[in-house]
Amino acid sequence: MSTIEPRRESVHVALGERSYEILIGRGVSQEAGARARALGARAVAIVTDENVGALHAGPILASLEAAGLRTDLVTVSPGEGAKSWRVLEDVCEGLLAARIERRDLVLALGGGVVGDLAGFAAAIVRRGMRFVQVPTSLLAQVDSSVGGKTGINSPHGKNLIGTFYQPSLVLADTALLDTLPAREARAGYAEVVKYGLIDDPAFFAWCEENGAQVLAGGPAREHAVAVSCRAKAAIVARDEREEGDRALLNLGHTFAHALERLARYDAARLVHGEAVGIGLALAFRFSARLNLCPPDDAARVARHLESVGLPTRIAAIPGLAPDVDGLLDAMAQDKKVVAGALTFILARGIGASFIATGVAVEDVRAFLLDELGAPASA
Amino acid sequence: MSTIEPRRESVHVALGERSYEILIGRGVSQEAGARARALGARAVAIVTDENVGALHAGPILASLEAAGLRTDLVTVSPGEGAKSWRVLEDVCEGLLAARIERRDLVLALGGGVVGDLAGFAAAIVRRGMRFVQVPTSLLAQVDSSVGGKTGINSPHGKNLIGTFYQPSLVLADTALLDTLPAREARAGYAEVVKYGLIDDPAFFAWCEENGAQVLAGGPAREHAVAVSCRAKAAIVARDEREEGDRALLNLGHTFAHALERLARYDAARLVHGEAVGIGLALAFRFSARLNLCPPDDAARVARHLESVGLPTRIAAIPGLAPDVDGLLDAMAQDKKVVAGALTFILARGIGASFIATGVAVEDVRAFLLDELGAPASA
Repeated sequence: MSTIEPRRESVHVALGERSYEILIGRGVSQEAGARARALGARAVAIVTDENVGALHAGPILASLEAAGLRTDLVTVSPGEGAKSWRVLEDVCEGLLAARIERRDLVLALGGGVVGDLAGFAAAIVRRGMRFVQVPTSLLAQVDSSVGGKTGINSPHGKNLIGTFYQPSLVLADTALLDTLPAREARAGYAEVVKYGLIDDPAFFAWCEENGAQVLAGGPAREHAVAVSCRAKAAIVARDEREEGDRALLNLGHTFAHALERLARYDAARLVHGEAVGIGLALAFRFSARLNLCPPDDAARVARHLESVGLPTRIAAIPGLAPDVDGLLDAMAQDKKVVAGALTFILARGIGASFIATGVAVEDVRAFLLDELGAPASA
Repeated sequence: MSTIEPRRESVHVALGERSYEILIGRGVSQEAGARARALGARAVAIVTDENVGALHAGPILASLEAAGLRTDLVTVSPGEGAKSWRVLEDVCEGLLAARIERRDLVLALGGGVVGDLAGFAAAIVRRGMRFVQVPTSLLAQVDSSVGGKTGINSPHGKNLIGTFYQPSLVLADTALLDTLPAREARAGYAEVVKYGLIDDPAFFAWCEENGAQVLAGGPAREHAVAVSCRAKAAIVARDEREEGDRALLNLGHTFAHALERLARYDAARLVHGEAVGIGLALAFRFSARLNLCPPDDAARVARHLESVGLPTRIAAIPGLAPDVDGLLDAMAQDKKVVAGALTFILARGIGASFIATGVAVEDVRAFLLDELGAPASA
């Protein structure tokens, strides 16, 4: 057991019979054994990747074994390539080979890729195994471990094969983030900022004060993770299957997905959170250009993202010089264009985002022309 | 449109927000177009196999196109081999290539294999597409199209990868059964009889009177399909995820699955419904041997199954001469043996089945020794 007295937060995700708790704090993953016992499991199969497994699987296996649980480890290669049919099959067959029964647990130990993959495998092995998420990146702790989206990629697009499947428990151990490369931590932080921008201006102001502390690993980190999880949980509880409000979580993401696509998902050039940083800045500048949002708010958003080292301009992506049509095409793959109009998440100000249907493609084009032609100015 | 005035039945499957209707009658599949429109679809992708597609896809495509729907056809090879990872991937990618959106429909046209496969694909493409079942075998109409079990097989066992996923509508067109080989029709009929044996002695008596008519395609067929669907729907509504009563549907199936496994799922020797016929007879003879059920009831069950040409003895399976240990091993793969005891579905008489926990393995062994040694007598 840890000697650290953890600063604890917990978030209840209210989804009826699919409700679950997110425990947040330094060292909470060391309770995996006791928590799995409390859930009635006799065996736990950990799904992880080679990098995360080498860093973090040992103490969790020890915790499970100390609680008298049979354990098994299914390890995949690191990276987005694991969200494939081949690796999904390997994980599912590995879980069956581990002889886990319906009462047992799958434990996803890793970032968003492992969570999406292991959650999907849990959803379809024996028509549904319970699973526990132990997210090991800031991005996974504040975003992908909340909300139940699981899946793999298809040649037709990302995340096109999957399910909505909720975990039984999330252990968001903020100590695991200490080993995170600075670039990954910053990238996850873009999603933290997003929750302030959607509907919580006070939290955005708190981020302006405390962002550096969140990244440095002070007690601000637990608060940021808890506020983020609570914000996402509230939206997901209103709209589990993304038929309405949940779209607000896509603030910045229409731009971000297009940029990731154009950068061919090359993590050396652009990781998801960096794309979200640029996307958030673009969404606010676009809102300002449409006279929806004060230009000062757009500038303030970019300033804060830049203060922690996040990019806010398309030109910041190494080796990417898209033209407007290429960018619009990439956006159209993410969104359905209906009669020359798109649905976007726009903002009337910081903390005042809304779903804007009927955004004219011509307005998007004019905005992007400016952005691409003016890389240096705000 | 058909000139036949169909004899119609409908069954409501009450599963809260996942409730749906089963329409039963000659010609109901010709309403596919109008029904898909009523569900708000703009496009429908049919999943079928080469044999069924050649026989039945044409009129359904015509119905969909007459209703102004865009259509696509995803065809797989016939047979249980289609319930594999490779074919699942092909079907999912085929559905994505067909550009069906969330509001559109997947239509499963075929027997149990196609229904299980297409239902699973529908469950995981875009995190869940609505789907319509058009079952084309008696077995699929009375069993696999009700209850939401979908999935594929694993090297570790049958149906180990899948989900519970309910269709939006089932069109059980009894005219499609006219092209069914007699052996397949008989095999499906074993599941019809099962519903009488579980808890409806009057329906079993009706079967004794009308079984030949059900197989011949008279109006008794619609009644048999409707009663069967209603019986299964009632049990599924009580226990969607098989945590209790739904196990009653496994009457005869512990024996049946073991026999299918020993026959290596070789349809030339034994199809599922034939195995169920033998399994039902065994379950009743075993119940009689344990003094739970009158021997006359066991004899009556075997007599009716034999009257329609179904096998009721292990020795009836060509080329299969298992020893007791081989049979017990095959059964143990289906059921967990806890402290020398098995859970079985047994009967106190026709229409009086129950879940029997703690059945001693030694009692099963003694019964099977008798069965294997006495192939000819009742």
